[in-house]
Amino acid sequence: MADKHLSTQFDAELSGISNRVLEMGGLVESQLAQAMAALSNFSSETAAQVIAREELVNRMELEIDRDLSGVIARRQPTARDLRLLIAVSKTIANLERVGDEAARIARTVDKLINAGVSTRLRQPVADLAYEAELATASLRKSLDAFARLDTARALEVLKQDDQIDQEFDGLLRKLITYMMEDPRTISASIDLVFVAKAIERVGDHAKNLAEVIIYVVKGTDVRHASMEAVENAVR
Amino acid sequence: MADKHLSTQFDAELSGISNRVLEMGGLVESQLAQAMAALSNFSSETAAQVIAREELVNRMELEIDRDLSGVIARRQPTARDLRLLIAVSKTIANLERVGDEAARIARTVDKLINAGVSTRLRQPVADLAYEAELATASLRKSLDAFARLDTARALEVLKQDDQIDQEFDGLLRKLITYMMEDPRTISASIDLVFVAKAIERVGDHAKNLAEVIIYVVKGTDVRHASMEAVENAVR
Repeated sequence: MADKHLSTQFDAELSGISNRVLEMGGLVESQLAQAMAALSNFSSETAAQVIAREELVNRMELEIDRDLSGVIARRQPTARDLRLLIAVSKTIANLERVGDEAARIARTVDKLINAGVSTRLRQPVADLAYEAELATASLRKSLDAFARLDTARALEVLKQDDQIDQEFDGLLRKLITYMMEDPRTISASIDLVFVAKAIERVGDHAKNLAEVIIYVVKGTDVRHASMEAVENAVR
Repeated sequence: MADKHLSTQFDAELSGISNRVLEMGGLVESQLAQAMAALSNFSSETAAQVIAREELVNRMELEIDRDLSGVIARRQPTARDLRLLIAVSKTIANLERVGDEAARIARTVDKLINAGVSTRLRQPVADLAYEAELATASLRKSLDAFARLDTARALEVLKQDDQIDQEFDGLLRKLITYMMEDPRTISASIDLVFVAKAIERVGDHAKNLAEVIIYVVKGTDVRHASMEAVENAVR
Protein backbone atom coordinates (compact mmCIF):
# COMPACT_ATOMS: atom_id res chain seq x y z
CA MET A 1 0.00 0.00 0.00
CA ALA A 2 2.03 2.93 -1.26
CA ASP A 3 -0.23 5.71 -0.10
CA LYS A 4 1.14 9.20 0.14
CA HIS A 5 -0.78 12.15 1.43
CA LEU A 6 -1.22 14.59 -1.40
CA SER A 7 -2.08 17.39 0.93
CA THR A 8 -0.05 18.81 3.78
CA GLN A 9 -3.23 20.48 4.99
CA PHE A 10 -4.72 17.01 5.41
CA ASP A 11 -1.59 15.94 7.29
CA ALA A 12 -2.05 18.88 9.60
CA GLU A 13 -5.66 17.89 10.22
CA LEU A 14 -4.67 14.31 10.99
CA SER A 15 -1.96 15.34 13.41
CA GLY A 16 -4.32 17.84 15.02
CA ILE A 17 -6.78 15.04 15.68
CA SER A 18 -4.01 12.77 16.95
CA ASN A 19 -2.95 15.43 19.42
CA ARG A 20 -6.46 15.79 20.73
CA VAL A 21 -6.70 12.03 21.20
CA LEU A 22 -3.51 12.15 23.26
CA GLU A 23 -4.89 15.05 25.23
CA MET A 24 -8.03 13.01 25.91
CA GLY A 25 -5.80 10.08 26.88
CA GLY A 26 -3.92 12.27 29.34
CA LEU A 27 -7.19 13.43 30.82
CA VAL A 28 -8.63 9.95 31.41
CA GLU A 29 -5.29 8.80 32.80
CA SER A 30 -5.42 11.59 35.36
CA GLN A 31 -9.10 10.81 36.03
CA LEU A 32 -8.14 7.26 36.90
CA ALA A 33 -5.22 8.38 39.09
CA GLN A 34 -7.48 10.82 40.95
CA ALA A 35 -10.22 8.23 41.41
CA MET A 36 -7.67 5.87 42.97
CA ALA A 37 -6.34 8.69 45.16
CA ALA A 38 -9.90 9.42 46.27
CA LEU A 39 -10.28 5.76 47.20
CA SER A 40 -6.96 5.54 49.09
CA ASN A 41 -7.72 8.65 51.11
CA PHE A 42 -11.46 8.14 51.31
CA SER A 43 -11.77 11.69 50.02
CA SER A 44 -15.21 12.66 48.81
CA GLU A 45 -13.79 15.98 47.62
CA THR A 46 -11.38 14.31 45.19
CA ALA A 47 -14.12 11.89 44.13
CA ALA A 48 -16.39 14.84 43.34
CA GLN A 49 -13.72 16.35 41.09
CA VAL A 50 -13.49 13.14 39.10
CA ILE A 51 -17.25 12.91 38.73
CA ALA A 52 -17.45 16.55 37.64
CA ARG A 53 -14.85 16.01 34.92
CA GLU A 54 -16.59 12.96 33.41
CA GLU A 55 -18.70 15.40 31.41
CA LEU A 56 -15.54 16.88 29.88
CA VAL A 57 -14.30 13.44 28.81
CA ASN A 58 -17.65 12.70 27.17
CA ARG A 59 -17.59 16.02 25.36
CA MET A 60 -14.08 15.40 24.04
CA GLU A 61 -15.22 12.08 22.59
CA LEU A 62 -18.16 13.68 20.80
CA GLU A 63 -16.04 16.56 19.49
CA ILE A 64 -13.23 14.39 18.18
CA ASP A 65 -15.73 12.04 16.55
CA ARG A 66 -17.42 14.99 14.87
CA ASP A 67 -14.10 16.29 13.60
CA LEU A 68 -13.31 12.83 12.26
CA SER A 69 -16.56 12.67 10.33
CA GLY A 70 -15.82 16.11 8.95
CA VAL A 71 -12.37 15.12 7.73
CA ILE A 72 -13.68 11.93 6.13
CA ALA A 73 -16.48 13.80 4.39
CA ARG A 74 -14.25 16.65 3.12
CA ARG A 75 -11.27 14.57 2.04
CA GLN A 76 -11.37 11.26 0.31
CA PRO A 77 -8.91 9.46 2.50
CA THR A 78 -6.87 6.64 1.04
CA ALA A 79 -7.28 3.17 2.52
CA ARG A 80 -4.48 3.64 5.05
CA ASP A 81 -5.64 7.07 6.20
CA LEU A 82 -9.19 5.85 6.47
CA ARG A 83 -7.97 2.96 8.58
CA LEU A 84 -6.28 5.50 10.82
CA LEU A 85 -9.40 7.64 11.11
CA ILE A 86 -11.60 4.67 11.96
CA ALA A 87 -8.95 3.56 14.42
CA VAL A 88 -9.07 6.96 16.09
CA SER A 89 -12.82 6.61 16.46
CA LYS A 90 -12.36 3.25 18.19
CA THR A 91 -9.56 4.66 20.33
CA ILE A 92 -11.60 7.50 21.72
CA ALA A 93 -14.50 5.14 22.40
CA ASN A 94 -12.08 3.12 24.53
CA LEU A 95 -10.73 6.20 26.27
CA GLU A 96 -14.22 7.38 27.06
CA ARG A 97 -14.87 4.04 28.70
CA VAL A 98 -11.76 4.45 30.82
CA GLY A 99 -13.26 7.78 31.91
CA ASP A 100 -16.47 5.91 32.77
CA GLU A 101 -14.58 3.42 34.91
CA ALA A 102 -12.80 6.25 36.74
CA ALA A 103 -16.13 7.95 37.45
CA ARG A 104 -17.58 4.64 38.59
CA ILE A 105 -14.71 4.23 41.07
CA ALA A 106 -15.21 7.79 42.30
CA ARG A 107 -18.92 7.17 42.88
CA THR A 108 -18.04 4.04 44.85
CA VAL A 109 -15.78 6.10 47.11
CA ASP A 110 -18.76 8.21 48.10
CA LYS A 111 -20.80 5.11 48.79
CA LEU A 112 -18.07 3.64 50.99
CA ILE A 113 -17.66 6.87 52.95
CA ASN A 114 -21.41 7.11 53.52
CA ALA A 115 -21.48 3.50 54.72
CA GLY A 116 -18.79 4.45 57.26
CA VAL A 117 -16.63 1.40 56.64
CA SER A 118 -13.43 3.12 55.59
CA THR A 119 -11.11 1.98 58.38
CA ARG A 120 -12.03 -1.68 58.05
CA LEU A 121 -11.10 -1.65 54.39
CA ARG A 122 -7.57 -0.23 54.46
CA GLN A 123 -5.94 -3.49 53.43
CA PRO A 124 -8.07 -4.41 50.39
CA VAL A 125 -7.93 -0.78 49.25
CA ALA A 126 -4.14 -0.93 49.39
CA ASP A 127 -4.27 -4.12 47.32
CA LEU A 128 -6.43 -2.39 44.71
CA ALA A 129 -3.81 0.32 44.32
CA TYR A 130 -1.37 -2.22 42.91
CA GLU A 131 -3.85 -3.50 40.33
CA ALA A 132 -4.52 0.13 39.36
CA GLU A 133 -0.78 0.73 38.92
CA LEU A 134 -0.58 -2.14 36.46
CA ALA A 135 -3.61 -0.97 34.51
CA THR A 136 -2.41 2.64 34.46
CA ALA A 137 0.99 1.54 33.17
CA SER A 138 -0.72 -0.39 30.36
CA LEU A 139 -2.91 2.55 29.49
CA ARG A 140 0.06 4.94 29.39
CA LYS A 141 2.05 2.51 27.29
CA SER A 142 -0.76 2.10 24.79
CA LEU A 143 -1.15 5.88 24.48
CA ASP A 144 2.58 6.14 23.98
CA ALA A 145 2.36 3.43 21.30
CA PHE A 146 -0.45 5.41 19.66
CA ALA A 147 1.60 8.62 19.64
CA ARG A 148 4.52 6.90 17.88
CA LEU A 149 2.52 4.23 16.03
CA ASP A 150 4.89 1.85 17.78
CA THR A 151 3.74 -1.76 17.39
CA ALA A 152 6.46 -3.16 19.65
CA ARG A 153 5.07 -1.16 22.56
CA ALA A 154 1.55 -2.17 21.58
CA LEU A 155 2.64 -5.79 21.75
CA GLU A 156 3.99 -5.26 25.29
CA VAL A 157 0.57 -4.01 26.35
CA LEU A 158 -1.07 -7.16 25.00
CA LYS A 159 1.42 -9.33 26.84
CA GLN A 160 0.83 -7.57 30.15
CA ASP A 161 -2.92 -8.01 30.13
CA ASP A 162 -2.74 -11.47 31.70
CA GLN A 163 -0.93 -10.01 34.67
CA ILE A 164 -3.77 -7.58 35.34
CA ASP A 165 -6.32 -10.38 35.02
CA GLN A 166 -4.38 -12.49 37.52
CA GLU A 167 -4.17 -9.57 39.92
CA PHE A 168 -7.94 -9.20 39.62
CA ASP A 169 -8.48 -12.90 40.36
CA GLY A 170 -6.23 -12.67 43.41
CA LEU A 171 -8.07 -9.61 44.70
CA LEU A 172 -11.40 -11.31 44.22
CA ARG A 173 -10.27 -14.30 46.28
CA LYS A 174 -9.02 -12.00 49.04
CA LEU A 175 -12.24 -10.02 49.12
CA ILE A 176 -14.25 -13.22 49.36
CA THR A 177 -12.13 -14.22 52.34
CA TYR A 178 -12.79 -10.84 54.01
CA MET A 179 -16.50 -11.27 53.50
CA MET A 180 -16.50 -14.76 54.98
CA GLU A 181 -14.49 -13.67 57.99
CA ASP A 182 -16.59 -10.61 58.66
CA PRO A 183 -20.02 -10.65 57.01
CA ARG A 184 -20.56 -7.03 58.05
CA THR A 185 -18.09 -6.07 55.32
CA ILE A 186 -20.02 -7.88 52.58
CA SER A 187 -21.75 -4.88 51.09
CA ALA A 188 -18.62 -2.72 51.05
CA SER A 189 -16.50 -5.59 49.80
CA ILE A 190 -18.84 -6.05 46.85
CA ASP A 191 -18.28 -2.39 46.05
CA LEU A 192 -14.56 -3.08 46.05
CA VAL A 193 -15.09 -6.10 43.80
CA PHE A 194 -16.63 -3.70 41.30
CA VAL A 195 -13.69 -1.33 41.68
CA ALA A 196 -11.33 -4.23 40.99
CA LYS A 197 -13.45 -5.10 37.95
CA ALA A 198 -13.41 -1.49 36.72
CA ILE A 199 -9.61 -1.46 36.94
CA GLU A 200 -9.38 -4.76 35.10
CA ARG A 201 -11.52 -3.24 32.37
CA VAL A 202 -9.16 -0.31 32.07
CA GLY A 203 -6.55 -2.93 31.24
CA ASP A 204 -8.93 -4.35 28.62
CA HIS A 205 -9.40 -0.92 27.07
CA ALA A 206 -5.63 -0.46 26.91
CA LYS A 207 -5.44 -3.82 25.18
CA ASN A 208 -8.12 -2.83 22.65
CA LEU A 209 -6.18 0.34 21.96
CA ALA A 210 -2.99 -1.67 21.38
CA GLU A 211 -4.83 -3.94 18.92
CA VAL A 212 -6.09 -0.91 17.02
CA ILE A 213 -2.52 0.43 16.72
CA ILE A 214 -1.27 -2.85 15.27
CA TYR A 215 -4.17 -2.82 12.82
CA VAL A 216 -3.38 0.72 11.65
CA VAL A 217 0.32 0.10 11.18
CA LYS A 218 0.34 -3.48 9.92
CA GLY A 219 -3.12 -3.81 8.41
CA THR A 220 -3.63 -7.04 10.35
CA ASP A 221 -6.63 -7.41 12.60
CA VAL A 222 -5.23 -9.15 15.68
CA ARG A 223 -8.37 -9.18 17.79
CA HIS A 224 -9.07 -12.66 19.13
CA ALA A 225 -5.74 -13.84 17.68
CA SER A 226 -3.24 -16.02 19.56
CA MET A 227 -0.18 -14.30 21.00
CA GLU A 228 1.94 -16.16 18.46
CA ALA A 229 -0.14 -14.81 15.58
CA VAL A 230 0.11 -11.29 17.01
CA GLU A 231 3.88 -11.57 17.31
CA ASN A 232 4.07 -12.67 13.69
CA ALA A 233 1.94 -9.74 12.61
CA VAL A 234 4.12 -7.26 14.46
CA ARG A 235 7.46 -8.71 13.39
CA MET B 1 -27.75 15.89 2.51
CA ALA B 2 -29.16 14.80 -0.85
CA ASP B 3 -27.07 11.69 -1.28
CA LYS B 4 -28.15 9.15 -3.81
CA HIS B 5 -26.38 5.90 -4.42
CA LEU B 6 -25.05 6.01 -7.93
CA SER B 7 -24.57 2.31 -7.97
CA THR B 8 -27.07 -0.43 -7.38
CA GLN B 9 -24.12 -2.78 -6.96
CA PHE B 10 -23.09 -0.66 -3.98
CA ASP B 11 -26.64 -0.86 -2.63
CA ALA B 12 -26.45 -4.63 -2.89
CA GLU B 13 -23.16 -4.65 -1.00
CA LEU B 14 -24.61 -2.48 1.75
CA SER B 15 -27.67 -4.63 2.13
CA GLY B 16 -25.53 -7.77 2.09
CA ILE B 17 -23.53 -6.37 4.99
CA SER B 18 -26.69 -5.34 6.82
CA ASN B 19 -28.04 -8.86 6.51
CA ARG B 20 -24.88 -10.34 7.95
CA VAL B 21 -25.08 -7.93 10.88
CA LEU B 22 -28.61 -9.13 11.54
CA GLU B 23 -27.44 -12.72 11.26
CA MET B 24 -24.72 -11.96 13.80
CA GLY B 25 -27.34 -10.28 15.97
CA GLY B 26 -29.52 -13.39 15.81
CA LEU B 27 -26.55 -15.52 16.78
CA VAL B 28 -25.60 -13.52 19.87
CA GLU B 29 -29.24 -13.33 20.89
CA SER B 30 -29.43 -17.12 20.82
CA GLN B 31 -26.06 -17.31 22.62
CA LEU B 32 -27.51 -15.25 25.43
CA ALA B 33 -30.71 -17.30 25.57
CA GLN B 34 -28.72 -20.52 25.70
CA ALA B 35 -26.39 -19.20 28.38
CA MET B 36 -29.38 -18.32 30.52
CA ALA B 37 -30.92 -21.76 29.85
CA ALA B 38 -27.63 -23.34 30.91
CA LEU B 39 -27.79 -21.35 34.13
CA SER B 40 -31.45 -22.17 34.88
CA ASN B 41 -30.87 -25.88 34.35
CA PHE B 42 -27.31 -25.97 35.65
CA SER B 43 -26.45 -27.71 32.40
CA SER B 44 -22.76 -27.89 31.62
CA GLU B 45 -23.59 -29.37 28.21
CA THR B 46 -25.54 -26.30 27.14
CA ALA B 47 -22.86 -24.07 28.63
CA ALA B 48 -20.23 -25.88 26.57
CA GLN B 49 -22.20 -25.20 23.38
CA VAL B 50 -22.28 -21.48 24.13
CA ILE B 51 -18.57 -21.39 24.84
CA ALA B 52 -17.80 -23.32 21.64
CA ARG B 53 -19.77 -20.86 19.55
CA GLU B 54 -18.03 -17.76 20.95
CA GLU B 55 -15.33 -18.36 18.36
CA LEU B 56 -17.93 -18.12 15.59
CA VAL B 57 -19.21 -14.79 16.90
CA ASN B 58 -15.67 -13.43 16.99
CA ARG B 59 -15.03 -14.61 13.44
CA MET B 60 -18.21 -12.96 12.19
CA GLU B 61 -17.10 -9.66 13.69
CA LEU B 62 -13.71 -9.85 11.98
CA GLU B 63 -15.22 -10.87 8.64
CA ILE B 64 -17.88 -8.16 8.58
CA ASP B 65 -15.28 -5.57 9.60
CA ARG B 66 -13.02 -6.73 6.77
CA ASP B 67 -15.86 -6.52 4.27
CA LEU B 68 -16.63 -3.02 5.52
CA SER B 69 -13.06 -1.88 4.98
CA GLY B 70 -13.17 -3.40 1.51
CA VAL B 71 -16.33 -1.53 0.59
CA ILE B 72 -15.00 1.76 1.92
CA ALA B 73 -11.72 1.34 0.04
CA ARG B 74 -13.36 0.33 -3.26
CA ARG B 75 -16.21 2.85 -3.26
CA GLN B 76 -16.03 6.41 -2.21
CA PRO B 77 -19.06 6.45 0.00
CA THR B 78 -20.94 9.68 0.47
CA ALA B 79 -21.18 11.16 3.94
CA ARG B 80 -24.41 9.36 4.78
CA ASP B 81 -23.23 5.97 3.51
CA LEU B 82 -19.96 6.36 5.31
CA ARG B 83 -21.87 7.14 8.48
CA LEU B 84 -23.78 3.93 7.94
CA LEU B 85 -20.63 1.90 7.37
CA ILE B 86 -18.93 3.28 10.48
CA ALA B 87 -22.15 2.65 12.37
CA VAL B 88 -22.10 -0.97 11.26
CA SER B 89 -18.56 -1.30 12.58
CA LYS B 90 -19.69 0.02 15.96
CA THR B 91 -22.75 -2.22 15.89
CA ILE B 92 -20.82 -5.41 15.39
CA ALA B 93 -18.36 -4.41 18.11
CA ASN B 94 -21.35 -4.17 20.43
CA LEU B 95 -22.77 -7.48 19.26
CA GLU B 96 -19.44 -9.18 19.78
CA ARG B 97 -19.46 -7.92 23.35
CA VAL B 98 -22.91 -9.40 23.87
CA GLY B 99 -21.39 -12.69 22.71
CA ASP B 100 -18.62 -12.19 25.28
CA GLU B 101 -21.14 -11.66 28.05
CA ALA B 102 -23.02 -14.82 27.02
CA ALA B 103 -19.79 -16.82 27.09
CA ARG B 104 -18.94 -15.31 30.46
CA ILE B 105 -22.29 -16.44 31.83
CA ALA B 106 -21.75 -19.92 30.38
CA ARG B 107 -18.33 -20.19 32.03
CA THR B 108 -19.89 -19.16 35.34
CA VAL B 109 -22.39 -22.00 35.03
CA ASP B 110 -19.53 -24.47 34.93
CA LYS B 111 -17.97 -22.86 37.97
CA LEU B 112 -21.22 -23.06 39.92
CA ILE B 113 -21.77 -26.69 39.00
CA ASN B 114 -18.24 -27.56 40.06
CA ALA B 115 -18.76 -25.77 43.36
CA GLY B 116 -21.85 -27.93 43.92
CA VAL B 117 -24.04 -25.10 45.13
CA SER B 118 -26.77 -25.36 42.55
CA THR B 119 -29.72 -26.26 44.76
CA ARG B 120 -29.07 -23.44 47.22
CA LEU B 121 -29.19 -20.90 44.40
CA ARG B 122 -32.51 -21.69 42.71
CA GLN B 123 -34.17 -18.48 43.84
CA PRO B 124 -31.50 -15.93 42.81
CA VAL B 125 -31.08 -17.78 39.51
CA ALA B 126 -34.81 -17.44 38.88
CA ASP B 127 -34.51 -13.72 39.62
CA LEU B 128 -31.69 -13.38 37.09
CA ALA B 129 -33.93 -14.87 34.40
CA TYR B 130 -36.21 -11.86 34.61
CA GLU B 131 -33.35 -9.38 34.22
CA ALA B 132 -32.19 -11.41 31.21
CA GLU B 133 -35.66 -11.23 29.67
CA LEU B 134 -35.60 -7.45 29.86
CA ALA B 135 -32.12 -7.24 28.35
CA THR B 136 -32.95 -9.72 25.60
CA ALA B 137 -36.08 -7.76 24.72
CA SER B 138 -33.98 -4.59 24.44
CA LEU B 139 -31.40 -6.33 22.29
CA ARG B 140 -34.06 -7.74 19.96
CA LYS B 141 -35.76 -4.38 19.70
CA SER B 142 -32.51 -2.62 18.84
CA LEU B 143 -31.74 -5.20 16.14
CA ASP B 144 -35.21 -4.73 14.80
CA ALA B 145 -34.66 -0.96 14.80
CA PHE B 146 -31.40 -1.53 12.94
CA ALA B 147 -33.10 -3.68 10.29
CA ARG B 148 -35.71 -0.98 9.58
CA LEU B 149 -33.60 2.05 10.52
CA ASP B 150 -36.49 2.80 12.85
CA THR B 151 -35.60 5.60 15.29
CA ALA B 152 -38.87 5.34 17.23
CA ARG B 153 -37.98 1.77 18.21
CA ALA B 154 -34.43 2.86 18.99
CA LEU B 155 -35.84 5.49 21.32
CA GLU B 156 -37.87 2.81 23.14
CA VAL B 157 -34.67 0.89 23.79
CA LEU B 158 -33.05 3.95 25.34
CA LYS B 159 -36.07 4.50 27.56
CA GLN B 160 -36.06 0.91 28.82
CA ASP B 161 -32.44 0.92 29.93
CA ASP B 162 -33.26 2.40 33.34
CA GLN B 163 -35.54 -0.52 34.05
CA ILE B 164 -32.71 -3.01 33.48
CA ASP B 165 -30.41 -0.97 35.71
CA GLN B 166 -33.02 -0.96 38.47
CA GLU B 167 -33.49 -4.69 38.13
CA PHE B 168 -29.73 -5.10 38.49
CA ASP B 169 -29.67 -2.95 41.65
CA GLY B 170 -32.50 -4.99 43.13
CA LEU B 171 -30.74 -8.27 42.35
CA LEU B 172 -27.54 -6.99 43.90
CA ARG B 173 -29.33 -6.12 47.12
CA LYS B 174 -30.96 -9.55 47.21
CA LEU B 175 -27.67 -11.33 46.62
CA ILE B 176 -26.04 -9.35 49.42
CA THR B 177 -28.84 -10.46 51.72
CA TYR B 178 -28.25 -14.11 50.72
CA MET B 179 -24.58 -13.78 51.48
CA MET B 180 -25.19 -12.25 54.88
CA GLU B 181 -27.72 -14.93 55.80
CA ASP B 182 -25.55 -17.79 54.65
CA PRO B 183 -21.86 -16.92 54.28
CA ARG B 184 -21.25 -20.32 52.65
CA THR B 185 -22.96 -18.96 49.54
CA ILE B 186 -20.66 -15.93 49.28
CA SER B 187 -18.41 -17.24 46.56
CA ALA B 188 -21.25 -18.52 44.38
CA SER B 189 -23.29 -15.39 45.02
CA ILE B 190 -20.41 -13.25 43.77
CA ASP B 191 -20.47 -15.32 40.61
CA LEU B 192 -24.14 -14.49 40.26
CA VAL B 193 -23.39 -10.82 40.86
CA PHE B 194 -21.15 -10.99 37.80
CA VAL B 195 -23.89 -12.72 35.83
CA ALA B 196 -26.28 -9.94 36.81
CA LYS B 197 -23.65 -7.42 35.72
CA ALA B 198 -23.12 -9.21 32.40
CA ILE B 199 -26.85 -9.06 31.70
CA GLU B 200 -26.95 -5.39 32.62
CA ARG B 201 -24.15 -4.82 30.12
CA VAL B 202 -26.14 -6.55 27.40
CA GLY B 203 -28.71 -3.84 28.04
CA ASP B 204 -25.95 -1.23 27.68
CA HIS B 205 -24.85 -2.72 24.37
CA ALA B 206 -28.45 -2.63 23.12
CA LYS B 207 -28.55 1.02 24.16
CA ASN B 208 -25.31 1.78 22.29
CA LEU B 209 -26.77 0.12 19.24
CA ALA B 210 -29.91 2.23 19.50
CA GLU B 211 -27.80 5.40 19.71
CA VAL B 212 -25.90 4.38 16.60
CA ILE B 213 -29.18 3.92 14.70
CA ILE B 214 -30.36 7.40 15.64
CA TYR B 215 -27.02 8.78 14.51
CA VAL B 216 -27.23 7.07 11.14
CA VAL B 217 -30.77 8.16 10.42
CA LYS B 218 -30.83 11.62 11.95
CA GLY B 219 -27.16 12.58 11.88
CA THR B 220 -27.37 13.60 15.54
CA ASP B 221 -24.98 12.08 18.03
CA VAL B 222 -27.17 11.36 21.06
CA ARG B 223 -24.57 9.68 23.25
CA HIS B 224 -24.48 11.26 26.70
CA ALA B 225 -27.51 13.39 25.77
CA SER B 226 -30.52 13.90 28.02
CA MET B 227 -33.67 11.94 27.18
CA GLU B 228 -35.33 15.20 26.22
CA ALA B 229 -32.57 15.99 23.72
CA VAL B 230 -32.82 12.48 22.29
CA GLU B 231 -36.57 12.82 21.87
CA ASN B 232 -36.08 16.09 20.05
CA ALA B 233 -33.53 14.50 17.75
CA VAL B 234 -35.82 11.61 16.89
CA ARG B 235 -38.95 13.71 16.41
